[in-house]
Amino acid sequence: MLVDNKHYRSIWRDLNSNKVKIIDQKLLPHKFVIAELNNVQEARDAIKNMAVRGAPLIGITAAYGMALAMANNNTDKDIINAGNFLISSRPTAVNLAWAVTKVSKSLLDTTQSKRTNLAMTLADQMAEDDVETNEKIGIYGCEIIKQISEKKSDGNPVRILTHCNAGWLATVDIGTATAPIYQASKNNIAVSVWVDETRPRNQGAALTTWELKHNSVEHTLIVDNAGGHLMQKGLVDIVIVGSDRTSANGDVCNKIGTYLKALAAKHNDIPFYAALPTSTIDMNITNGVQNIPIEDREHREVTHINGVDQNGKLISVKICPPDTKISNPSFDVTPAELITGIITEKGILHPNEGTLLKI
Amino acid sequence: MLVDNKHYRSIWRDLNSNKVKIIDQKLLPHKFVIAELNNVQEARDAIKNMAVRGAPLIGITAAYGMALAMANNNTDKDIINAGNFLISSRPTAVNLAWAVTKVSKSLLDTTQSKRTNLAMTLADQMAEDDVETNEKIGIYGCEIIKQISEKKSDGNPVRILTHCNAGWLATVDIGTATAPIYQASKNNIAVSVWVDETRPRNQGAALTTWELKHNSVEHTLIVDNAGGHLMQKGLVDIVIVGSDRTSANGDVCNKIGTYLKALAAKHNDIPFYAALPTSTIDMNITNGVQNIPIEDREHREVTHINGVDQNGKLISVKICPPDTKISNPSFDVTPAELITGIITEKGILHPNEGTLLKI
Repeated sequence: MLVDNKHYRSIWRDLNSNKVKIIDQKLLPHKFVIAELNNVQEARDAIKNMAVRGAPLIGITAAYGMALAMANNNTDKDIINAGNFLISSRPTAVNLAWAVTKVSKSLLDTTQSKRTNLAMTLADQMAEDDVETNEKIGIYGCEIIKQISEKKSDGNPVRILTHCNAGWLATVDIGTATAPIYQASKNNIAVSVWVDETRPRNQGAALTTWELKHNSVEHTLIVDNAGGHLMQKGLVDIVIVGSDRTSANGDVCNKIGTYLKALAAKHNDIPFYAALPTSTIDMNITNGVQNIPIEDREHREVTHINGVDQNGKLISVKICPPDTKISNPSFDVTPAELITGIITEKGILHPNEGTLLKI
Repeated sequence: MLVDNKHYRSIWRDLNSNKVKIIDQKLLPHKFVIAELNNVQEARDAIKNMAVRGAPLIGITAAYGMALAMANNNTDKDIINAGNFLISSRPTAVNLAWAVTKVSKSLLDTTQSKRTNLAMTLADQMAEDDVETNEKIGIYGCEIIKQISEKKSDGNPVRILTHCNAGWLATVDIGTATAPIYQASKNNIAVSVWVDETRPRNQGAALTTWELKHNSVEHTLIVDNAGGHLMQKGLVDIVIVGSDRTSANGDVCNKIGTYLKALAAKHNDIPFYAALPTSTIDMNITNGVQNIPIEDREHREVTHINGVDQNGKLISVKICPPDTKISNPSFDVTPAELITGIITEKGILHPNEGTLLKI
């Protein structure tokens, strides 16, 4: 997508230098800095310190991390070691293990001399696949927005509420929850996005606003508390969110607070969609609400908030008394009964009608 | 309630100096500073810049503001002028107009020579009344907590979720939503409070944590997004919130985000109570969801967050890109259908059973 009118992906291989490059998302929206990943250590650091984040992008970064590891050392043992090293950066991220396992298998099946080149080719291919998947999600999801648009008679754009950042910055390009929005915008369907700030890490306030702004999509930032009120007042036409893991019965695990928005959507008869690649669906879990494990992240995310001071300096401030006890569950699970549909690269699934099992 | 083991009210008259004193809540929880109100201008400033906040406390501060105005100038015209001056500080605060009107009427009915003393006596009396009201709310509300405690067999304390600060800092003493909690604590019923941080102004993170800490009530700070997940996991036994205005049909207007918690409580079969003085009930509004006006507050509350830096210096940081469009509705309305009961100084009201009309 666009940054200052120039097209970028969130991760790419520079074809001249053969270096892997990323946008350092820790600094957004305040500074736009491109960083280089020169080796597997730097790839791991980027995942761990959240210079890259978002389940799909973490997976692709890990794939490039494997490719960087193979540049110098590519015995079977090197493959295993690099894989374990990368996976340990964020152990709960499902896509990370998936990507590392996929690359490792192919490399182990190949003679050692071919591994260096193959690893980079595989990473490139996985990046392309991610983009293609998101394009399809965009096309299917856009149809839903188009239908809402055609039914509207109040002259307003289709008002879409989203939570967290399931945008192009969370993927290689286009995004998942944002894919239908960008597609609608491309098709000249008038849309306007309510952006939840998404405490504790404020990915909505920092990232979703930034990417929508650079791609000329009308949007308004709100605190997470505001969405219910806006729905009650008829100011939201549809909710679209991403997902970190979706269970076989259609329960959607996503950033903490998603469940509250789904409840409000249901109470106000507003369609609620999750947009996700089918690789996010975990067919081994048949009851997401009960069985998807929820990570309790570091407490500093709650006690401190990052931003820029009046001189533009990046800084964090503490908002509560010293030694306050904190709980920081980072995801919640929205039960399938609250979900209108799941937008995937294979079409729209309706968990209540058992369509997850058909894919 | 206690601050560093010494009893304070949020506003009081120093009997030696006859000065009105307040706790400057802008600086909490980082600094505990007592400020003096020497004249009506300073009383108005304290309300306007939110050194005092919370509907009941604003009302009492305005009453003292009238008393300070009468110290020097106490013609009929002075009364009217001082009243208008105070009301204009926060025009949407219902208690402010209520308190000013009450004091003004009594003063206008009195000969000029008696007004200076009468005004101070009236303000003192209104402060006492506020405390007495909250004590009664505490006693009625504690009964509910006690019943939950007696039914519990898991050995955990009664886990109460609250939103914003309807604590003693929002009143003269004891609070509204916190009154049952403090009463339970006094009666040795084990309680533990989930404190919503309450964006955008973070009154939960800054004030509720601070007052619970100083009064030795076990509590845990969470982001506003977390409450639904905690309820889904069986970690919340009851929700108690305050109210800024409650309509005749029992719809409760309170800090933005309250409605989302009420939806989650309903979905998980958890009792949801509002605690409020009956003076908060507006019998002129018969449909709160439709007709209670909602203030859109300044956008800087969303774009900037206040806290202390690593040197303990009070500072605000910006969390979003420049020129981001903001919407900041500050209250929402929870429909009566989601409310288990309303705890008042006259007992527990059940809006669905028409008990509001009986009071």
